[in-house]
Amino acid sequence: MFGKSSRKNIRYQLAPQMRDYDRMKEVWLPHLMYFHSPCFRSEAVNTDRDGFRLTGPLKESVFADPTQKPVSLLAGNSTAFGVGATADAQTIPAHLQRITGENWLNFAGRSFSSTQEFLLFLYFYPRLPKIRNVVIFSGFTNISLFYRAWEYCKQYGIFFSWNRFNKLLNQREDFAKTHPLLNRLIPSSYKNRLDLSAMTPRQVLKAILKGAPVERQPQSLEPFFIKVTDPKREKGVLLPVIEHDLRNWRMLADVLGFEVSYVLQPLIQWTGKQFSPEEEKLIADIDRHPAMFWRVFRDYMDEAEHQWLSGETRRLCEQFSIPYYDMSKLMSGKDLDRQWLFVDRPHLSDRGSKLAAELIAEHIL
Amino acid sequence: MFGKSSRKNIRYQLAPQMRDYDRMKEVWLPHLMYFHSPCFRSEAVNTDRDGFRLTGPLKESVFADPTQKPVSLLAGNSTAFGVGATADAQTIPAHLQRITGENWLNFAGRSFSSTQEFLLFLYFYPRLPKIRNVVIFSGFTNISLFYRAWEYCKQYGIFFSWNRFNKLLNQREDFAKTHPLLNRLIPSSYKNRLDLSAMTPRQVLKAILKGAPVERQPQSLEPFFIKVTDPKREKGVLLPVIEHDLRNWRMLADVLGFEVSYVLQPLIQWTGKQFSPEEEKLIADIDRHPAMFWRVFRDYMDEAEHQWLSGETRRLCEQFSIPYYDMSKLMSGKDLDRQWLFVDRPHLSDRGSKLAAELIAEHIL
Repeated sequence: MFGKSSRKNIRYQLAPQMRDYDRMKEVWLPHLMYFHSPCFRSEAVNTDRDGFRLTGPLKESVFADPTQKPVSLLAGNSTAFGVGATADAQTIPAHLQRITGENWLNFAGRSFSSTQEFLLFLYFYPRLPKIRNVVIFSGFTNISLFYRAWEYCKQYGIFFSWNRFNKLLNQREDFAKTHPLLNRLIPSSYKNRLDLSAMTPRQVLKAILKGAPVERQPQSLEPFFIKVTDPKREKGVLLPVIEHDLRNWRMLADVLGFEVSYVLQPLIQWTGKQFSPEEEKLIADIDRHPAMFWRVFRDYMDEAEHQWLSGETRRLCEQFSIPYYDMSKLMSGKDLDRQWLFVDRPHLSDRGSKLAAELIAEHIL
Repeated sequence: MFGKSSRKNIRYQLAPQMRDYDRMKEVWLPHLMYFHSPCFRSEAVNTDRDGFRLTGPLKESVFADPTQKPVSLLAGNSTAFGVGATADAQTIPAHLQRITGENWLNFAGRSFSSTQEFLLFLYFYPRLPKIRNVVIFSGFTNISLFYRAWEYCKQYGIFFSWNRFNKLLNQREDFAKTHPLLNRLIPSSYKNRLDLSAMTPRQVLKAILKGAPVERQPQSLEPFFIKVTDPKREKGVLLPVIEHDLRNWRMLADVLGFEVSYVLQPLIQWTGKQFSPEEEKLIADIDRHPAMFWRVFRDYMDEAEHQWLSGETRRLCEQFSIPYYDMSKLMSGKDLDRQWLFVDRPHLSDRGSKLAAELIAEHIL
């Protein structure tokens, strides 16, 4: 992270604020899985003692407001969080604060799934005064994670780092791959009766050599997990989790008496805009990045995917009377050609954040 | 697990059903953290395809009830789950089913904290018909985990295996301990500026040798975690998480229209009963077990702790109008001397489960 490589980097040349975002770490936590480091300090991005991003001057806690005026919240993932903004004051909730004259909090978490967005709110709602509006500015994490998962969890969804978490903690590696030699020595009668993926080589050897009683049945986890083999075709399995999270938002909105609305976050290629020179360079650079995270946005998120995701999310929102908006579409109504709005395919520049806030204020508030 | 050692084991001699419980595995999952293996089959304990324990005849899903009659739920940890029962039909919800003639489901999870008890319900409530009663039969996990934790998470609580999870995923090991030699070579000016616990030795060496710019501040996680040094004195920090979980139960009960009540689960020494000969032997055996899990129940859960936990939980329940009961106290009102009710300090025998169900029916339903 220190040193030369970054000096050659187009991303750091054109958008030097990205260094601060790249330097932030996540902290692993129970249930929410992780959140931003608390009290992180840098030029572009600062967090409070609970890990929430600030919207202006440094303060220790976003919940410490002696006026107890009503608040509104922007929930979401890294785009709502404001990865790409040059300062906390340039993020969407900061702009909404200026436009509306009301208190807005950044309730987004980097890489958050729809479930994490809801859980974050579920943990912190008692520390808020009266809530006026919650705008969920979201949509990409669940689907982009699905495109890079090898297993998907039907009931609970998945989260960023799920592949690593699943491997580390469930330790269900393919025995034939991790121990190819030993695997060939196991009589096939045992293969069907031992849960190889959950046993050490020693345990396997012992069970066979001693002719010891074997587990009567291998523990199949098929009811919990499905193998992802053709995500484009199988992506319908994503919808029940999104549906459940929206159901829970609706419930909390009714109980606590706030307005909730949903904005499908924008993707540069879905706005139909002509790239600005900076966008051209930044996106050509990031498109060369080998990480699957970036490849998903380049290779799979085409207009057909846009139509599918927008249509299905709208349908689920309607089911719970949550007003639905498609930010790519709202943006495409403006003349944006050659304006620099994105720092990469899913993340907004300062100007992009300002425009998104204006469109939210115009259409939703 | 196979073989000789168990034949000498008093636990397996007197309560052979414990073999089945010891053989069950947990599956790690997003947010809920873990749940029981799906479709587990054994003599004593069986689960459905979502990991819920059955209450009687084998079935694939506890949610597959074509009659859609109202249900009631027993939430809780391993005691509510029925660790110790010789069969699914001998657990508390199975007895409640027989006593009331109504449908009861086992909504407990082994080793579940108060937050996991709530989250399990939050995930599955849409799959239930009309809910009549939820009895939370709980109380030991949060406090016993606290007694064995080296760090506690103020906002999110902790869960069983948190120590391992925290170490594996946050990797904040004490650099002075893991790399004593290198640690001595680091100039003290760097020690204050590098987040050693988050760096590899290579990164540390590189930063020093190159005189490279260092992180401006070590990332302190103090706002998230507190070191646990004197759990007996510090245990008040547990209460906000329990309070929040009860607040959420109250909210769901109001929204979905069910009755919710809380039963502090029993501990053999809190009932004041004379041990039966079997209890004598089983508890003498388990008290020799070196695991901290068992030592907490032996060494720390005395009558003063009972008074504290019962008093504080009652106070929190009253705050949310949740009727509160102390099962140890309800039991102590009966003549139970020398009856065999417990298989270890916190877990009930078949007779103990039957009595607990009768007392729930008598006092709560």
